[in-house]
Amino acid sequence: MSILFLADLAAEELAVWTQALRASLPGDDIVAWTGEPASAPAAEILAGVSVAVVANPPPGRLARLPALRLVQSAWAGVDALLADPALPAVPLARLVDPLLAADMAEAVLGHVLALHRQMPAYRAQQARGHWQPLAQPRMAERRVGVLGMGEMGQASAALLAQVGFDVVGWSRRPRAPLPGVAMASGADGLDHVLGAGQILINLLPLTPQTQGLLGAGAFARMPRGAGLVNAGRGGHVVVPDLIAALDAGQIGHAVLDVFTVEPLPAGDPLWQRADITITPHVAAPTDPHSAARAIAANIARWRAGEAPLGLVDRSTGY
Amino acid sequence: MSILFLADLAAEELAVWTQALRASLPGDDIVAWTGEPASAPAAEILAGVSVAVVANPPPGRLARLPALRLVQSAWAGVDALLADPALPAVPLARLVDPLLAADMAEAVLGHVLALHRQMPAYRAQQARGHWQPLAQPRMAERRVGVLGMGEMGQASAALLAQVGFDVVGWSRRPRAPLPGVAMASGADGLDHVLGAGQILINLLPLTPQTQGLLGAGAFARMPRGAGLVNAGRGGHVVVPDLIAALDAGQIGHAVLDVFTVEPLPAGDPLWQRADITITPHVAAPTDPHSAARAIAANIARWRAGEAPLGLVDRSTGY
Repeated sequence: MSILFLADLAAEELAVWTQALRASLPGDDIVAWTGEPASAPAAEILAGVSVAVVANPPPGRLARLPALRLVQSAWAGVDALLADPALPAVPLARLVDPLLAADMAEAVLGHVLALHRQMPAYRAQQARGHWQPLAQPRMAERRVGVLGMGEMGQASAALLAQVGFDVVGWSRRPRAPLPGVAMASGADGLDHVLGAGQILINLLPLTPQTQGLLGAGAFARMPRGAGLVNAGRGGHVVVPDLIAALDAGQIGHAVLDVFTVEPLPAGDPLWQRADITITPHVAAPTDPHSAARAIAANIARWRAGEAPLGLVDRSTGY
Repeated sequence: MSILFLADLAAEELAVWTQALRASLPGDDIVAWTGEPASAPAAEILAGVSVAVVANPPPGRLARLPALRLVQSAWAGVDALLADPALPAVPLARLVDPLLAADMAEAVLGHVLALHRQMPAYRAQQARGHWQPLAQPRMAERRVGVLGMGEMGQASAALLAQVGFDVVGWSRRPRAPLPGVAMASGADGLDHVLGAGQILINLLPLTPQTQGLLGAGAFARMPRGAGLVNAGRGGHVVVPDLIAALDAGQIGHAVLDVFTVEPLPAGDPLWQRADITITPHVAAPTDPHSAARAIAANIARWRAGEAPLGLVDRSTGY
C-alpha cells in the first residue's frame, strides 16, 4: 500500500525520517511529498492514498487526498495541524511514543531539581563571588504541580513522585489515579494546583482553551517566587505577563523550552534574562526511529480494525 | 551522664545544635565547650567526660579529657578531626545519617541531569542568543562513575541507577553489590571507572591516599569532555590541574561544592569561570535535628555494648 509522508523538514531530517518509516513499514511504499514543489507525487498516486503520515505538512495538502482515511502525526502535539482550515474530517492520531514520554520526564526532573536546589540563585551568587548557603527544603516538602496528564505529564509526574517530590497533577477531565501523585481536575482543581505548586510544570496540549493559560491571572495565584517550567507550547505563556511576574518577583525563575516563534529570534530580549533559562525545544525531541516504530504499530492497529492510539478529539483539540 | 559537646560554630548554629542534642539525649547533661575560652567547663566535669560529640573542635582539646572513651563526630567527614596530632586513641565514630545520604543523592542527581542534558552548553548558547539543539543520548547510554561507595556514594549511585543512568561505582576495597550498579574496586577498577565515566562524581573520604586524586593523571584517563562533580572534599582536586584540563577541553564542565578553603575567597578566579559551577558546600548540609537523633542512637548502641555505626579505621582514615 502507498503511505504518503507529507513533510516540510530540513533535507537531512527528511532523509532520516523517510528511511526510518521505510524500515518500520517494509511492506508499504513510502511516498514523500516535501516542501519542494517538484516532489509532488503523480495524481494517480495521490488519488489512492488512504494513510498520510504528516510532519509539518504545508496547509491544504491533505485536502487533495480524496481516498484519505487516516492522518498520523509524526509529532505528539497537533495544534499546528488542527490550525489547517482545510484539514479533512478523517481520524487524526497524534504520536504516542513511550520513549518521548520518558525523555520528557527526564528533562522535567532535571529542571525541577535545578529549581528545587536553587541553582539560579547560586549562579547569581557565583557571578558576584558570593558564598552563601541557602535554606533548603527536602524534596518531600517541595510541592510540584504538573499541568497536563497526558502521556508526558503522567510520565513526568510519576518520575517526580518516584524520586520523592510532593506532586499534584492536573487535567481538564478527571483521570485514573497515578501512584504517589495527587490528582486534580476541572477549574477548581486548576486553582488548587496553581496555588499549591512551588514549582509548576506545563505539559498541556495547546488548544483554544489552554492558549494563554499561563498569564497574569495564573501567575497571581501561584506562591510568591514560584518556579515555572514550560515544556508544552509557546502559546501557553503570555510572555509580557511572565516578564512582569518575574520583574515583580512573583515568579522566581522560568525555564522555557518552547516559544511561539521557533527558533527564538537572536535579538529577542528573553535570551538575556538571568531569571529565564532557555533551551531550544529539546526537552523531548522526537526520535525518528522510535517514532517510526510507534507510527507503524499504530497503522497496524488501524488496519486490524482497532482504534489508533492518540486519536484526537477535535472538540477538545487533543 | 555528662556528654561534652565540643564545638566551634557560629552562635546561632551552636544554639540549634545544643538544643537538638538536648532534645535527643534527654537523660544526659549536655555540656557545651565552644570556641569561646570562657565556655570551658570546670575541671571536675572534664575529668568525668566519657563521650564527646565534636563539631570542629579546637585542636588539642580532646587530649584534655582523661576519662574519654568515645568521640562522636557531628560530621560525616572526619579528615579535619584526624588532622589533630593530639587526637586521643579512643574509638571515633563519624556521623551516619540516612537523611544526609538522601540529600547527597538528590544533589548528585540534579548535577548529573544538568550535565547529561548539556545545560552548561545551552547556557553558553543562551548568553549569545544562539538557538541550536544538540545531539542528546538517553540516560541508559550515559555512563556515570561514582568514586566512593560509603553511605553517600551508595545512595547516589542507587538513585542514579534507579532513574535510568548506566552507573559504575568505585571503592578502594570490594563492596557488596548494589542493584543496578556495576561495582569496581582497587587500582585497576579506578582506571576502569575513570576511563568509562562520561560524568564522574567524587564522594570519597579525604585521606592521605585520596588527597589530590583528581589531578592531571586522573583527568587524562577520563573520556574527552567529561563532566566532574566534586562533593567530597576540596583536597581531592588539584585545582591547577583542573583548570588546565578545562582549558584543554579534556574536562567539559566541573561542579564544585567543596574547596580547600571555605568560604571560597571572593577574589578566587574559580568564581568567574563559565565551565565551573560553584555551590557553597550545600550538597548535603548536616541537619542538626536528624544528626542529633542519629548521634543519640549511636551513643545508645555504644552504651549497650554494640559497635557504633561509622567507626573510623585510623589506618585508612575513614
